Amino acid sequence: MRVYVLPDSFGGNGDLVLRGKDAHYLTKVLRMKEGSLFAGRDKSGRFWDLKLTVVGKGTCTLCCTEAQSDPVSTSDALPSYRGPFPPIHLYQGLCKGKKMEQIVRQATELGVTRIIPFSSRSSVIDLTGKEEDRRQRLVLIAKEALQQSGSPVMTEIAWPIDLSEIPGEWGDRGTAMLLHQVPKEKEESLPSILRAHRIARDGAPVALVVGPEGGFSDEEASLLTAHGFHPVMLKTNILRAETAAIVATAIVQHLLIEEV
Amino acid sequence: MRVYVLPDSFGGNGDLVLRGKDAHYLTKVLRMKEGSLFAGRDKSGRFWDLKLTVVGKGTCTLCCTEAQSDPVSTSDALPSYRGPFPPIHLYQGLCKGKKMEQIVRQATELGVTRIIPFSSRSSVIDLTGKEEDRRQRLVLIAKEALQQSGSPVMTEIAWPIDLSEIPGEWGDRGTAMLLHQVPKEKEESLPSILRAHRIARDGAPVALVVGPEGGFSDEEASLLTAHGFHPVMLKTNILRAETAAIVATAIVQHLLIEEV
Repeated sequence: MRVYVLPDSFGGNGDLVLRGKDAHYLTKVLRMKEGSLFAGRDKSGRFWDLKLTVVGKGTCTLCCTEAQSDPVSTSDALPSYRGPFPPIHLYQGLCKGKKMEQIVRQATELGVTRIIPFSSRSSVIDLTGKEEDRRQRLVLIAKEALQQSGSPVMTEIAWPIDLSEIPGEWGDRGTAMLLHQVPKEKEESLPSILRAHRIARDGAPVALVVGPEGGFSDEEASLLTAHGFHPVMLKTNILRAETAAIVATAIVQHLLIEEV
Repeated sequence: MRVYVLPDSFGGNGDLVLRGKDAHYLTKVLRMKEGSLFAGRDKSGRFWDLKLTVVGKGTCTLCCTEAQSDPVSTSDALPSYRGPFPPIHLYQGLCKGKKMEQIVRQATELGVTRIIPFSSRSSVIDLTGKEEDRRQRLVLIAKEALQQSGSPVMTEIAWPIDLSEIPGEWGDRGTAMLLHQVPKEKEESLPSILRAHRIARDGAPVALVVGPEGGFSDEEASLLTAHGFHPVMLKTNILRAETAAIVATAIVQHLLIEEV
C-alpha cells in the first residue's frame, strides 16, 4: 500500500475507529500490526499521518494527525513523480465488467481526474436501473487503485450518461477529443491539438472520449465533432477498447506534461 | 477477426486443409461458413486472400491465393494506421500468469517487434524447467492478439533469460532504456533520448526494459546502465508492472512515429 484512503466518515484529527470491511482490510489483508505508521489521504486529497493504535475483534483504531509536509515514508516508498497532473476527463464507452474495471484501475493509476462512463449505440451493456450499483463497484476499484499507486489525484467516477449527453456534461471546460478511425482528410494529430491547447488554454482540463468495443457510428462521431470535439486517430494498430483507453490517456498525459 | 494467422504448416498457393484446433477456431469460434472470404498472413508477414471452400467434421479447407495488394477487405475492416511501426524490443520482467498475459496481449496489439521475458532478483516466478511451456502459452496469446488487431508486426516471444543476460542478448542493435525510479541527478527524459536516437540511429531498434513487480534493485539497474542502457522515469504515478509496460511502450511508439 502506498497511501491509505480514509473512509468518508473520517472527521479529522484524533482517533478514528474502523469496523467491518475497513478494519478487515487493514488488519487482515494488509496485516498491519498495532504501532504501524503509514500515510493516509482524506477525500479532499489532504495527507494524514496514521498510527494503528488498537486492534480488536473486527475493529481497529487509527490515531490521525494532519501531515505537516509529505506523508510518512512507508517501507515501500520510492522516489516518484509528484506532479503536476494535467486534468484529464475520460469519457469511456461502457464495456463488459472486467474490461471496464481494468480501464478504471489503470486510468486511476495514471491520475485521471474523472471517468464518465457512457452508453452508446454499440454498447452491449444496458445499465438501466443498475447505474448506482455499477458505479459503486467502479468507485471501489478506483479506491483500491488509488491506495496502491499513491496517486495524488482523487479520481472521481461519474454517474453513467448517454453519448448524446456528453457535450452538455462537458460544457466548455477545455479541449475535447474523440478517439476515432477517421478518413485522412479530417485527421488531426494529437500533438498539434494539444500544442494548441497549451497555447490557448494552458491548465484547462482536457476531455478524451473513447468508444466501447465496436467504436462509434458515423452519426455518433458527427454529433461530437459538431460540438467541437476533435477527432483523433492514434498512429498504431486497431486496439481493443481497454487498450485504446489506457494508450490514449498515457500519450495525452505525456504530451501535456513533457515540453515536446 | 482482422487477419487470420496461417499455421506454420502453410505451404503457399492452393488448398490448405485444417484439422483439430485450427478448424475448430475458424468454423466454431468464428462461425465462418463455406464461401467466406477473408485475409490471412503467413509467418513471414505476407498477406493471402483466403476462401473457406469446404467445411467437414473437424476439418475445413481454405483456398489460398497470394494477395496482390492490401488484403481482402473483411466486413469489420476499418481505416487504420498502416505503418511504419518502429522496431521496439520489450524486455519484460516476469510477472504472474494473468499479468504477463495481459502485457503480451497489449504489447502485441500495439505492434511490438519482440518480447523477451526475463527473471530477476525480485521475480516471484521461477520458470526453471517450464520455460518452453510458458513460452508456448505466451506465443498463443500473441497469435490471438495479432488476429484480433490485424497488426502487421508478427510479434515474437523470445526464450526467457536472466536480467544479467540482457546486455548480451541486446548487443548493440540501437538505443536501450530501462524504466526506473531514479534520483533526479541521473534522470534523462524519454523525448530527449528518443530525439538523439532519431538523429544518430534512425530506423534502428529500440529496447525497453520494464521490471517485474517490485522493480529493479540498485545493483540490477547499475548492471544495465553500465552497459549503456539509459534510465528513464515516466512522469506519472508509480504504476503496476502491467500498466507500466503498456504505458511506456505506447509513449515510446508515439514519440518514434510522430514528428514531435
